[in-house]
Amino acid sequence: MIEAEFMRRIAAAAAAQTLPRFRQAGLVSNKLASGFDPVTEADREAEKAIRSLIRSTFPDHGILGEEFGAENTDSRHVWVIDPIDGTRAFISGLPLWGTLVGLTDGGDAIAGMMSQPFTGELFWAAGEASHYDGPGGARRLATRGTRAIAEATMCTTTPALFAGEMRASYDRLEGSVRLARYGTDCYAYAMLAAGNVDLVVETGLQPYDIVALVPIIERAGGVITRWDSGPAEKAGDIVAAATPELHAAALEMLNA
Amino acid sequence: MIEAEFMRRIAAAAAAQTLPRFRQAGLVSNKLASGFDPVTEADREAEKAIRSLIRSTFPDHGILGEEFGAENTDSRHVWVIDPIDGTRAFISGLPLWGTLVGLTDGGDAIAGMMSQPFTGELFWAAGEASHYDGPGGARRLATRGTRAIAEATMCTTTPALFAGEMRASYDRLEGSVRLARYGTDCYAYAMLAAGNVDLVVETGLQPYDIVALVPIIERAGGVITRWDSGPAEKAGDIVAAATPELHAAALEMLNA
Repeated sequence: MIEAEFMRRIAAAAAAQTLPRFRQAGLVSNKLASGFDPVTEADREAEKAIRSLIRSTFPDHGILGEEFGAENTDSRHVWVIDPIDGTRAFISGLPLWGTLVGLTDGGDAIAGMMSQPFTGELFWAAGEASHYDGPGGARRLATRGTRAIAEATMCTTTPALFAGEMRASYDRLEGSVRLARYGTDCYAYAMLAAGNVDLVVETGLQPYDIVALVPIIERAGGVITRWDSGPAEKAGDIVAAATPELHAAALEMLNA
Repeated sequence: MIEAEFMRRIAAAAAAQTLPRFRQAGLVSNKLASGFDPVTEADREAEKAIRSLIRSTFPDHGILGEEFGAENTDSRHVWVIDPIDGTRAFISGLPLWGTLVGLTDGGDAIAGMMSQPFTGELFWAAGEASHYDGPGGARRLATRGTRAIAEATMCTTTPALFAGEMRASYDRLEGSVRLARYGTDCYAYAMLAAGNVDLVVETGLQPYDIVALVPIIERAGGVITRWDSGPAEKAGDIVAAATPELHAAALEMLNA
């Protein structure tokens, strides 16, 4: 089992690279020639630091990271890394980005962490439970009991990511919830696990965007899958919910 | 002149009411019978604490607050209070809400503060400058030098707030900027003053949503007015920009 101590070491190693570069000018570059896909020096340096820690601690494990790709991913255990999820929040000064590191066993996510070093928060899961370290101290994470769509607070990064029929499905769901929030990136899943929001709906995710968050949500009592009910570890289009009832209702509305 | 010490006392008095209630269940009520306009116990208690401090320190000044209305607002000096700007962020656990307190002299905003107690940040202006107290220490605030819309990062709470022709104007501007972020409430103006974003465009604001932020932006080098170029203290439809050139370009595009 992965211990809390290792999660905290990873979070600290990443924070040493990200935090000094947060809200500093001149660090943004364009990853893609077309469009605007910012990636920072912080992203690359943090992933290097995380990979180094994993390699030295678990030399037999594989690693898949956003910035430096796959190594040894035929291993039973593979670590999945997004050094800065929410780079657009990062470059806008907003403290909603996070460092995501998950661990899979035969493809199933069994441990994970999301660290937000500016707020000093660590959301993590290992073994049977999900946990929070942050202002106000350490505690267990638990989703809240919302079952009805009409009572739900829902988050998504931006509705503009949904195209065609998916946009119609998303809009139908957004029109049915109590409250919708945008611009939340990985922080939305942390708030779901913590019982502050009820639904997260997104599209077009990569495994490194979501694997770390799967155990945090599941072990807090939530449910997270693809829109087609497949395992969230496969990424793509994702629905996360506070309860099984809410998850089923959201899936039904999205796929109607 | 209002001293930094008084800003910090107000921020601390408000934080004592807001922070213990942040991320606690069961504090949300509906202010309006129709729709969803949440207001919390934290909102009311924070405004009471702020009013009490102002009354005892400046007994001749007027006060206008979101929760408890106007008193003595014929005075030359009037304090304008939003105890929790961004109640939707607050009830969703997101640390982008803030306590806003501004001071007007004959209707002109001459001092103001935005406090975010979960992150431990205070953005404030008095006299000739804008200031930041927070993680990493105290410093002066300054907007960045972005002049061209195509280079700008823009924030708004949600595009859904713009209706009819205003929505078309907003969409035209959003389609022209480098990056758009949603869901930012008062935190967007703080990030503008701090040089992390370049434009904030909103509609339908009340004076208590904006008065506190006007001096913070202006004394950091930014420009903030209504869409009709009128004074931002009158609230309504607001454009804030990092530079005079960017402000003029945004106004021209919005009013085309």
